[in-house]
Amino acid sequence: MPEPSNPAPSWTYAMSGVDRASVGSALSELLRQVRYRAPPSHGRPIPAPGHYAGFVRIGRETLAITTDTVGTKVELARRLERWEEVGEDVVAVNVNDLAAVGARPAGLVDTILCEAPSPEVFRSIGRGIDRGLRSAGASLLGGETAVVPSLIRGLDLGGTAIGFFPGGRRPVVGDRIRPGDVLLGIPSTGLHANGFTLVRRLLDERSIDLATPRPGAERPVGAELLTPTRIYTRAADALTGPATTHGFAHVSGGGVRNLLRLHPPVSYVLDHWPKIPSLFGWVQSLGSISDQEMFQTFNMGVGFVVVVAPTRLSETRRRLARAGASDAVPIGHVERGSGVHVPALGLRYDTYA
Amino acid sequence: MPEPSNPAPSWTYAMSGVDRASVGSALSELLRQVRYRAPPSHGRPIPAPGHYAGFVRIGRETLAITTDTVGTKVELARRLERWEEVGEDVVAVNVNDLAAVGARPAGLVDTILCEAPSPEVFRSIGRGIDRGLRSAGASLLGGETAVVPSLIRGLDLGGTAIGFFPGGRRPVVGDRIRPGDVLLGIPSTGLHANGFTLVRRLLDERSIDLATPRPGAERPVGAELLTPTRIYTRAADALTGPATTHGFAHVSGGGVRNLLRLHPPVSYVLDHWPKIPSLFGWVQSLGSISDQEMFQTFNMGVGFVVVVAPTRLSETRRRLARAGASDAVPIGHVERGSGVHVPALGLRYDTYA
Repeated sequence: MPEPSNPAPSWTYAMSGVDRASVGSALSELLRQVRYRAPPSHGRPIPAPGHYAGFVRIGRETLAITTDTVGTKVELARRLERWEEVGEDVVAVNVNDLAAVGARPAGLVDTILCEAPSPEVFRSIGRGIDRGLRSAGASLLGGETAVVPSLIRGLDLGGTAIGFFPGGRRPVVGDRIRPGDVLLGIPSTGLHANGFTLVRRLLDERSIDLATPRPGAERPVGAELLTPTRIYTRAADALTGPATTHGFAHVSGGGVRNLLRLHPPVSYVLDHWPKIPSLFGWVQSLGSISDQEMFQTFNMGVGFVVVVAPTRLSETRRRLARAGASDAVPIGHVERGSGVHVPALGLRYDTYA
Repeated sequence: MPEPSNPAPSWTYAMSGVDRASVGSALSELLRQVRYRAPPSHGRPIPAPGHYAGFVRIGRETLAITTDTVGTKVELARRLERWEEVGEDVVAVNVNDLAAVGARPAGLVDTILCEAPSPEVFRSIGRGIDRGLRSAGASLLGGETAVVPSLIRGLDLGGTAIGFFPGGRRPVVGDRIRPGDVLLGIPSTGLHANGFTLVRRLLDERSIDLATPRPGAERPVGAELLTPTRIYTRAADALTGPATTHGFAHVSGGGVRNLLRLHPPVSYVLDHWPKIPSLFGWVQSLGSISDQEMFQTFNMGVGFVVVVAPTRLSETRRRLARAGASDAVPIGHVERGSGVHVPALGLRYDTYA
């Protein structure tokens, strides 16, 4: 039997220390313990299991709430001593999850955990937050700074956003999706804030110089990777009025599996995936990562997906163009069946977690 | 000049690595950059600088939002391998900040950052969260679990709570406070979740065995310190209807300085502070900590303060008793002047930060 000659290890996100399956099972242990249901006089939660946001009805308003952190992208910020981008990201990761349920963001609170507070770092983060808020049309409503040198290495940046549904709009949760619907993809600006634990491992393994452009690129690798997450708020907001928008997906951690958070028993066929930006191919080659792993870890060039009836495609694209997303393109369609499919690469995903 | 003979160092919170002044100045750098104000169609923030919660008006509802972490109390949980208490704390620290503005909690989202997700730890945290939610009458609306082994040592536990003002109630922000008002204090259950970075340093310095009771106590030190934060939600909720409740203070990080977050130009005279629980005296002796430092770092036995007109004192105490706080006692009063004063100990505090 021939010995494989020095096989390149094929990296996975789990190998970098983040096993999404084990997170899911620990989390379900936590949720199993939380049995209490508050009386209706204390707000009425609207069940939306697995969705991008939690919902609660208070008086005449339905509110959506999301919470997320920038994750280990902050370590790249620390190495490059550039914090403005991740400041923008902490807004983006939260408001994009609100956009994915059709909620308009009302505001954000941020949480900074740090070893020691640096005025320069905080100033840069503030500039980034301001930029993110402008892009999303949201206000900063508060925040928390915890100096916890024994707990944290460097700095962690998280936030929580609350959103609402103006003018009696309903949350967009995918229940209207049906076979024949078109999937429109809005491009990402790069890796956004996902997969960085793996990327950083690969950068270290391959001794990549962050100050030098990768082959074929113009900007230094570090700056390219740090590019802030695109904010899809105005695009989603432009589509949440008409009842013909059937669903949204924010392609964040979990990649195209995020489509499975929309529940109807259909199949998502991604048969027109756009040309994958070369940054992703370069990351893939660094770790000999499989296509299956790439599409469930990174956004692969598409950060947000809109599901619409085919009869409303042109109108939807016009609305998107007016909201700054003229680059949205059809990337696939909905069929009878199940799972997410990328036929050109033979990929199939059946569960979200 | 006589040499002091081996003077005991007098510990401060800043010496343990947490300098509240430097946090304040870094934070103001961040906030100075956040200039954007969203249009009214995106929710109308209600300014409440320095307060316990942020406010935003959405449609006909005013919402309050707070975000806070358990802080380094989680490290004690880790050493003792007991997580239920801090699970309850993450609810408490957030809903108590809502209680301090008179908001009823609608729900909470939690954020766990960890090196690796442990089903047993998550199960215990879930049990604690459930207990906290029951006590507060709030629902879990979502959460985030981030596995970030390169960022975190162990586990961090934070959350965000949203609250509202049922039946047209107004936020309680202290604007009705006037000289002559009475300060009622509701006892704490121990250290709550504040000052643990300092306490842990002292426990280590003095090689305190967590499994043994301190002198005069019955429970092991570790278990005593881990006691969950008391939840004041029902107490505050019972008082937010009548317009005669003039203010609330949650005595958290910053100790009695928290009264200064209520803005009217008055003086808070704490001339009936109840007997300080012996746990605080023991902590103080471990670090030769000054009284001034103790009252601005720990709750010293009083976790929540209610400011009421003297004519409504009996009714307020009756309402508190029905809401589970029959142990509320007068601890002082409001005078013309400024600052927080503890006359018996000659203490005076003039600013919150």
